[in-house]
Amino acid sequence: MKGWQFVDTNKPLELVEKEDPKAEAGKVVIDMKVAGLCHSDVGVLRGEGWKALLGELFVIMGHEIAGVISEVGDGVTDYKVGDKVAVCPTGPSGTAPGYAYDGGFGTKVLAPAEDLVRIPDGVSFAAAAAGTDAGMTSYHAAFNKGGIKKGMKVGMIGIGGLGQVALEAAIAQDIEVYAIDTNPKARELAKDLGAAGVYENVKEIAEFEPEVIIDYAGFDITTREALESVAFQGKVVLVGMGKLETTVNVTSMITKQATLVGSNGGTKQDIEDMYTLMAEGKVSPKITEITFDEIPEGIQMLEDNKVTGRLVANMEE
Amino acid sequence: MKGWQFVDTNKPLELVEKEDPKAEAGKVVIDMKVAGLCHSDVGVLRGEGWKALLGELFVIMGHEIAGVISEVGDGVTDYKVGDKVAVCPTGPSGTAPGYAYDGGFGTKVLAPAEDLVRIPDGVSFAAAAAGTDAGMTSYHAAFNKGGIKKGMKVGMIGIGGLGQVALEAAIAQDIEVYAIDTNPKARELAKDLGAAGVYENVKEIAEFEPEVIIDYAGFDITTREALESVAFQGKVVLVGMGKLETTVNVTSMITKQATLVGSNGGTKQDIEDMYTLMAEGKVSPKITEITFDEIPEGIQMLEDNKVTGRLVANMEE
Repeated sequence: MKGWQFVDTNKPLELVEKEDPKAEAGKVVIDMKVAGLCHSDVGVLRGEGWKALLGELFVIMGHEIAGVISEVGDGVTDYKVGDKVAVCPTGPSGTAPGYAYDGGFGTKVLAPAEDLVRIPDGVSFAAAAAGTDAGMTSYHAAFNKGGIKKGMKVGMIGIGGLGQVALEAAIAQDIEVYAIDTNPKARELAKDLGAAGVYENVKEIAEFEPEVIIDYAGFDITTREALESVAFQGKVVLVGMGKLETTVNVTSMITKQATLVGSNGGTKQDIEDMYTLMAEGKVSPKITEITFDEIPEGIQMLEDNKVTGRLVANMEE
Repeated sequence: MKGWQFVDTNKPLELVEKEDPKAEAGKVVIDMKVAGLCHSDVGVLRGEGWKALLGELFVIMGHEIAGVISEVGDGVTDYKVGDKVAVCPTGPSGTAPGYAYDGGFGTKVLAPAEDLVRIPDGVSFAAAAAGTDAGMTSYHAAFNKGGIKKGMKVGMIGIGGLGQVALEAAIAQDIEVYAIDTNPKARELAKDLGAAGVYENVKEIAEFEPEVIIDYAGFDITTREALESVAFQGKVVLVGMGKLETTVNVTSMITKQATLVGSNGGTKQDIEDMYTLMAEGKVSPKITEITFDEIPEGIQMLEDNKVTGRLVANMEE
């Protein structure tokens, strides 16, 4: 097998040849079909802290994995050769592909069976890969941490890679969503997808008294204004890390008895829920596809903010 | 009857004589025994906004009420003459004594029966009055919004009028409390009351990984450090309004999936719970007592921060 391996901070990924993995007990070998690329991959390559965290292990990167099982280890009874699967990067094993073990930027991945999520018919490998991280994070923030459901008025800030998925999922469940984005194109997209209203500034949605606002941007003013615009005893879910700090109006927070909660990652269940919506055609993440050879350039594209939607690599091209 | 009436912003309260109230339908007349004085009374007298809020109604102030029923109106079946009662200032009627109608700085109060809380044997009128606002607010923040219970590690910031009550209530329920206060006397008090540890800075309790931290101070750095010191998926309850704004570390909030929630007021149930603890001798709010005539001076004492514990007026002296 081959793969793109992390060698050092600020060094390009290195193309390596390794022996094919063997299925160990409790694990399966996945033949990769599509690997998602993520802004956090840029963070790993540029952030000085990561090398220490990854230890001296030089792993093949990539934590958004979709493929087909080619070998199952002892004790694995729920899966068989030929099954289409994805890997939850924050699954029960507590280990993430591309961090704790060789990940999706390689042609084969040896993954713990407990972290697997089945890819249903009607969901492409590309959508499945995008669903594991961006999809899961977006869905978890809105439906799990935010607890949004039918009959609620909900605000969503930042209709980008994360926000778009939650917006579609919410609209599919007849939730009234007010979308906020400073980018006119994102507002147009939100309108096309069926948002109840689209706005440039968060404060404009205060009149609708939204019970929950999900902040996929996290640009300080977005979180602050969300807390000031949410309904009495409402909740703001903070997902985006656009700024390092956010300033909160204490009087408003207390008299309104508002809640601010941080959301990160998600669960296998979130991914399964996303896949169900994808299979029903209700959620279709916007995807830009590149080839295996283009993975290093793809990471550069992410760093340069040149990607629309989610970026995935077709590992067979 | 007589009482201390609000006349204008920044004007002293005026001693007035009024006709005794008659019990209307659904209401009771309470002969006042003890009225609590509150920092918010200073706010009403000094804040320019209050006059407009109170309308042209010149009410007798005082929202912490404990007394004995002297008359019951039509339709009131749960209470009878001679019952010892307090009034929940944020009760089901949606009206507060001292704001919407003549309050506790008068010798008689006409209050909605639905807002009454029975004062059990073993709870003094002074403790009961202090329990209606400070007690309720403190208890609600810790036990209701914070959801603290036995087996948890909890941080409490600010062991003053509010914090002390919650600290005692928590210790009575075998909850491990780490108390933080910049004032050495408050730390000494917390230690005497049975805190598991007392500290000057919030960050010192991070090593205990407290699941919940209640911030009775709200001095920006306290809230910020509480969010950084709370356990993974922990919760910080913001009660104190020491500063107008607080600055939150976004990365920590998200990776820790922490929750920040504002708490304000409480319910009749909170007051009842407090009274039960008081009757069992498990909570004894520190009280400074003055007379009816001294109410205006008492408010000045609060403004000058010269009061230890809760300030109450014995209405019969």
